[in-house]
Amino acid sequence: MSNCIVAQSGGPTSVINATVAGVVKANQMNPIYEHVFGGLNGIEGILAERFVDLTDMTEEENRTLQQTPSSALGSCRYKLKRDNPEDFEKLLKIMEKHDVETLFYIGGNDSMDTVAALAEYAEKHNITDRRFVGCPKTVDNDLMHTDHCPGFASAAKFIATTTLQTWLDVNVYPASRKEVLILETMGRDAGWLAASACLSGKVDILILPEEPFDTDVFLKRVKECIDEKSKCYVVVSEGARFADGTYISAGESKNDLFGHAVLGGAGEALKALILETETAPRCKVQDLSTAQRSHATEQSLVDRTEAYRLGLSAHMHTADKTFTGKMVGVKRRDCEEYDVEYFAIDADQVANYVKHFPAEWILPEYRGITEEAYAYLRPLINGTPYITFKDGLPAYVEPYYLR
Amino acid sequence: MSNCIVAQSGGPTSVINATVAGVVKANQMNPIYEHVFGGLNGIEGILAERFVDLTDMTEEENRTLQQTPSSALGSCRYKLKRDNPEDFEKLLKIMEKHDVETLFYIGGNDSMDTVAALAEYAEKHNITDRRFVGCPKTVDNDLMHTDHCPGFASAAKFIATTTLQTWLDVNVYPASRKEVLILETMGRDAGWLAASACLSGKVDILILPEEPFDTDVFLKRVKECIDEKSKCYVVVSEGARFADGTYISAGESKNDLFGHAVLGGAGEALKALILETETAPRCKVQDLSTAQRSHATEQSLVDRTEAYRLGLSAHMHTADKTFTGKMVGVKRRDCEEYDVEYFAIDADQVANYVKHFPAEWILPEYRGITEEAYAYLRPLINGTPYITFKDGLPAYVEPYYLR
Repeated sequence: MSNCIVAQSGGPTSVINATVAGVVKANQMNPIYEHVFGGLNGIEGILAERFVDLTDMTEEENRTLQQTPSSALGSCRYKLKRDNPEDFEKLLKIMEKHDVETLFYIGGNDSMDTVAALAEYAEKHNITDRRFVGCPKTVDNDLMHTDHCPGFASAAKFIATTTLQTWLDVNVYPASRKEVLILETMGRDAGWLAASACLSGKVDILILPEEPFDTDVFLKRVKECIDEKSKCYVVVSEGARFADGTYISAGESKNDLFGHAVLGGAGEALKALILETETAPRCKVQDLSTAQRSHATEQSLVDRTEAYRLGLSAHMHTADKTFTGKMVGVKRRDCEEYDVEYFAIDADQVANYVKHFPAEWILPEYRGITEEAYAYLRPLINGTPYITFKDGLPAYVEPYYLR
Repeated sequence: MSNCIVAQSGGPTSVINATVAGVVKANQMNPIYEHVFGGLNGIEGILAERFVDLTDMTEEENRTLQQTPSSALGSCRYKLKRDNPEDFEKLLKIMEKHDVETLFYIGGNDSMDTVAALAEYAEKHNITDRRFVGCPKTVDNDLMHTDHCPGFASAAKFIATTTLQTWLDVNVYPASRKEVLILETMGRDAGWLAASACLSGKVDILILPEEPFDTDVFLKRVKECIDEKSKCYVVVSEGARFADGTYISAGESKNDLFGHAVLGGAGEALKALILETETAPRCKVQDLSTAQRSHATEQSLVDRTEAYRLGLSAHMHTADKTFTGKMVGVKRRDCEEYDVEYFAIDADQVANYVKHFPAEWILPEYRGITEEAYAYLRPLINGTPYITFKDGLPAYVEPYYLR
């Protein structure tokens, strides 16, 4: 009997560990692998042969792992390059050495590209006994083909809750105090997270990357809100940009190792605009930063359950020895009450594409989102899992990469 | 039978409404007032005769009110000035007109000064049938005489939880990625909130307003952490300052209506320092802003229970017709398991003083807090109340000032 490895990549989420827990539990229920290894720090750690053995994880640890945010196995932003075969050879040798038949890789766009590239490489070299399977995760919700991505709904729930709570906060002072609150969310290319703030019912102005930013329309809308009710609640995605594609965020933009622009500061840019034009005398920015993807005390039960089941599903699919180069995903069922089914798709159909927030779901003049968008978003944040605490704080597993 | 008014002032908290709920419930259990009015927007709204009638609040609304953050009655930053008797005369006339015997005022330093000033004025003018009672609230935990302040513990719990979660987030990448995460908390003059982050057990460097900021020591400590484990977690209070008293926060400082410095940006100032000196190549700032005082899905059960009981206690005290110019507070009992008793103190002993985080609880070189400090903080964040949800979001009462 051979082994498998599960590893995590990219930015963490509140439920990314639930998928690891699912893979481990599936193998306990149907042990098609002798060992389930955890690869530390994604591909980067696997290339350095840094593994832990998760095979016999206790039920208690499994449950605690599901409520632990961020990547318990560690992460990386290391990308296999197709024009550099050395890493591929090395990885396959390491898999052979440890008799690892299947690599489960949990991640976003770039990770699905890694899965596709590895499967292609193996096929090209007639290697039939190594398999590569992707499990989706990203708070950005921008993967193609899957109805939504694990991690998104929990972040969306935290954002909508925080919008509701900080809206209550900014409204407490009398009408004589005119004030704008700007909430900045993640979302480099897709506005899903920012749009989810609308679930609170409190967003006056919503700025998404999908709609070019128009200074005049924005300021007109701020003025309307301030004139009408003396307060204005703005939500902006970090990736908001002008018609020419440049980001509205203040300050210099840098590139990360993959050539993506490093963002932050869209909220501050809007604040400067509002104050400089004297459209409102007071303006505060709330940038949720990494808290939005790691605030796992706010997990959506739907999200956590699906993340876990995607781990189960990925493992179960590999009972079929030809299953490789695939990503598992969720498809919303066409029925009254929210429900999903699980399916698999070629990873190269997901890799390097971005699923944008649909243009037809965006109301004009930054007035938020359509009823269709609400119908899509609402069921995803439903339910709150039971979270266990220790000394007043949520109980978490110690990261495996630090043990 | 006469009436009473309850009102809220200053910055809101996650449990400030629990105190209102307590006053209302106490009068339902022991109706010493015919009506319990809610004064909208604090003294400012009372002076404009903006009231709602809370007397017959249902049990369900009372419970929902207790889990609703921010001031449901609205707030103000209006301060009665002792040298301007007009407001005093006007307020007493309005109380007489509506047969209001007692004003319960929920707030911090400034509100206790209002309570003291009104009681003094009444005494000076031989007005014996109007009474003024303060209930403490402030996330800053800086009121004298009470062991701690309602609102603080829930904010502390959110801060400690967020520290734990974002610490997990910043640590996921391999050691080759050297990175500093700076969490900025509220706390203009007192370091209680920043110190509470230490409950997570993950804070490497803690900067409080109580200890003068020394650039060299700080950078030495950052370097040590980065050299040792490639990551460094810094927590800084917005009120951190140099030995000469100037704030470390970047940008210009302004004053609010009370002459307090308006802060923000201590985290950004530290980030600039770290990057300019190349002490670490990467640095992120997480500024919790108003979310830390309004994130009521993270209420501490201890905090919420005490806030409610302080409302009960304040009302019960006023069965004594001489009870005026007082603030109710909590005193920690000297026993093994955490417990408090409720007491009352002259409001002028609380007004305009600040209770600092004790110097003897601060470890040298920003290494955090002593065991004594932990023993003080730990019991306060215990327990999680049952929160009801609607459509995936916490159920809140509609603010009374918007009805």
